[in-house]
Amino acid sequence: MKDEIKVMLTEKEMPTRWYNILPDLPQPLPKPLHPQTQEPTTLPPPLFPPTLNEQEFSQERFIEIPEEVQELYHKYRPSPLIRANRLEKFLDTPAKIFYKYEGGSPAGSHKLNTAIAQVYYNKKAGIKRLTTETGAGQWGSALALACQFFGLECKVYMVRVSYEQKPYRRIMIETWGGKVVPSPSPDTNIGRKILAEDPNSPGSLGIAISEACEDAFSRDDTCYTLGSVLNHVILHQSIIGLETQLQLEKADAEADIVIGCVGGGSNFGGISVPFVADKIKKGKKTQIIAVEPTACPSMTKGPYTWDYGDVAGMTPIMKMFTLGHSFIPSPIHAGGLRYHGMSPLVSHMHKLGLIEARAVDQKSTFESAIKFARTEGIIPAPEPSHAIKVLIDEALKCKESGEKKTIVMNLSGHGHFDLSAYDQFLSGKMEADAYSEESVKKALSQLPKVNYAEK
Amino acid sequence: MKDEIKVMLTEKEMPTRWYNILPDLPQPLPKPLHPQTQEPTTLPPPLFPPTLNEQEFSQERFIEIPEEVQELYHKYRPSPLIRANRLEKFLDTPAKIFYKYEGGSPAGSHKLNTAIAQVYYNKKAGIKRLTTETGAGQWGSALALACQFFGLECKVYMVRVSYEQKPYRRIMIETWGGKVVPSPSPDTNIGRKILAEDPNSPGSLGIAISEACEDAFSRDDTCYTLGSVLNHVILHQSIIGLETQLQLEKADAEADIVIGCVGGGSNFGGISVPFVADKIKKGKKTQIIAVEPTACPSMTKGPYTWDYGDVAGMTPIMKMFTLGHSFIPSPIHAGGLRYHGMSPLVSHMHKLGLIEARAVDQKSTFESAIKFARTEGIIPAPEPSHAIKVLIDEALKCKESGEKKTIVMNLSGHGHFDLSAYDQFLSGKMEADAYSEESVKKALSQLPKVNYAEK
Repeated sequence: MKDEIKVMLTEKEMPTRWYNILPDLPQPLPKPLHPQTQEPTTLPPPLFPPTLNEQEFSQERFIEIPEEVQELYHKYRPSPLIRANRLEKFLDTPAKIFYKYEGGSPAGSHKLNTAIAQVYYNKKAGIKRLTTETGAGQWGSALALACQFFGLECKVYMVRVSYEQKPYRRIMIETWGGKVVPSPSPDTNIGRKILAEDPNSPGSLGIAISEACEDAFSRDDTCYTLGSVLNHVILHQSIIGLETQLQLEKADAEADIVIGCVGGGSNFGGISVPFVADKIKKGKKTQIIAVEPTACPSMTKGPYTWDYGDVAGMTPIMKMFTLGHSFIPSPIHAGGLRYHGMSPLVSHMHKLGLIEARAVDQKSTFESAIKFARTEGIIPAPEPSHAIKVLIDEALKCKESGEKKTIVMNLSGHGHFDLSAYDQFLSGKMEADAYSEESVKKALSQLPKVNYAEK
Repeated sequence: MKDEIKVMLTEKEMPTRWYNILPDLPQPLPKPLHPQTQEPTTLPPPLFPPTLNEQEFSQERFIEIPEEVQELYHKYRPSPLIRANRLEKFLDTPAKIFYKYEGGSPAGSHKLNTAIAQVYYNKKAGIKRLTTETGAGQWGSALALACQFFGLECKVYMVRVSYEQKPYRRIMIETWGGKVVPSPSPDTNIGRKILAEDPNSPGSLGIAISEACEDAFSRDDTCYTLGSVLNHVILHQSIIGLETQLQLEKADAEADIVIGCVGGGSNFGGISVPFVADKIKKGKKTQIIAVEPTACPSMTKGPYTWDYGDVAGMTPIMKMFTLGHSFIPSPIHAGGLRYHGMSPLVSHMHKLGLIEARAVDQKSTFESAIKFARTEGIIPAPEPSHAIKVLIDEALKCKESGEKKTIVMNLSGHGHFDLSAYDQFLSGKMEADAYSEESVKKALSQLPKVNYAEK
């Protein structure tokens, strides 16, 4: 009997609980510190509803997915696990390759998994309106759709340069009824201040975060949301890994290698936590690889230390791999991977040796993406194309060694809105991406001085 | 037990045969006539391989889907049948609404179903290279991917105005390894002639067809392909309707109404032929509605008569509903529906009263698309948004009458590359579309004079 190309689950087979790895970690995850007092703290309560703050630090291993959230997941989940039989043949590798495809969600990426959950809990808490920042627009559009599903208002502060250069994600947000303004905007104090100094400011993710937080702080009916980095985000994304495990079982396969790209850490965390748990609890030897861009190599080049989550130093201080909160990565096309730090949870798993990290450059990333598109059909977003590069490397190692490893990758989103980057690459106009040791050194000299000693 | 939101089929449940309605028609479909002799003819043999010409006129009820084609279908098929429970609730209708979603294919529409099949048969016939024309680029990109799958060269003549204004589909074609030139191009005699007269010619679908055909006529290793209109295209698309019937059975539902948009007729034909067969053979009363734009109302305003398939009068003469081959519809956003005629098979089914036709205008189409996007999540392409408009009309009729009808619609593609049209609509800049009785009258005066009398 032929193997299935596309391993599906029925709705009834979809997991009904998210998996929380916190209680299973061999050493507890360091708590965030208050930016002023430097004492262990929660997430800032006015910004997040109580349930999400609880989930952030929960010691429950499994958390029920509310029925309303499940019903919305069913519009696009369970997502398929697809056998890359054509890529295998092209590479002439004995490896068995699977990719979990999250790009089939209406918002085009895995971001919707946590957007739906976050909006649900905010609504339950009586919140009427949510704010957030967005760079290229993946997260902003996912949040806008989720807000529309639950009837909440949505206000997105979109980095001005993206707002102007990438109108499609902006239009998606508006199509789903969200409000989106270019940041810096005249709608907040910080925005007005920056505009007064430089009316043509191109904006930055740091500024947009500050505006979204100020907006949420200023109104009782409004909370703030984040699309990555935090534990509760990875909790919601664990649905990816849980489904993948069931699908591998159906395909009578076991993962030897699991690969995901990392920026803030949400899609990588989502696919990997159930596999990390099996390493901890069942002693499995799975190799779990987080792939970051050489232009922003927090885990491969940064120290594991205390740093702010944002540029302005308004967020709690977190223990993580970081290039320094004032580091600004070069403008690679994988906008979702341009984050100075790394999810504290993913950082912790790396520190404990449960996962490994690799960095790949933009050009070889696009080269791999095109091989993938021409064999498997799907045109991947630049972010997961980083994972594809390492997937191909590992498959070629198997070719050399003759090993029949099973390799699983998270294809977190499609590249329909990134085609101008493909055009640049195909026409030979893509430049090698830059990474400056100097600017990292400078940013690392600006880390907060933390005296807190963990017990 | 709760109904499933997303009715799936396993790969093993996917039909392994296409359905051909030709032998089941109560009256035979009129054959095309040779453009010069006006005698019944096949498709021009140098342009199409023998197997596709056989399929075009086959009297076999079922045709096996070759295994290699099935394997490629499995990358994205069976496609889901999704219950529009949120749209139902929003409309407060007792109707049960389902949509078959074809936008999940790597090429973003149903076009890939026939592209894969056509390239397969061309390859079997020893053809090394395929040409085609494309307007907005849906068909050109699907063919480029299918050619890449089978290792054939692909040359797409893309209407210049689209090539310049809609670069994303052009880049998709190139990402998949296809060659694409703006038409008129210097690569053909007709292209050079037109460029000599008007170096800035914006091009037209008619010109692009002529270039693609001239190219295929001029090389022994090259055939021409068409993404709609012809019987073998609808045969390949019947997979949509066959899957839908199995899925409805799984959902314990029976279609009272089946809706699809029509331009050349391929997605509508694809979903509807198995339902039309049940009307003919089992006496079912299903209402089957083809929806066209008021800007190009071939079935609702055109006569059923003999006409050319192309603007230049190079193709066989076909019996169909037509506005006249020289009619140029106003530039609505649903580029895929801007065809002067209608598939002879769909026309014939309409003439026999097996299906009905309705026309809807562009603005109410986008209004409906936005309702759909805000309830169901998926942002639809402008073409199937025509079907959504009628879907909503029918669901509201049910609300009025209290009837619990089951309505099924083919959502043939996503609107990721049509967001500028959404922007126009949302910002109030979309103008009402124009339809000129005068220009249709003029075009109809230029119909070919046909003396052939059917027996």
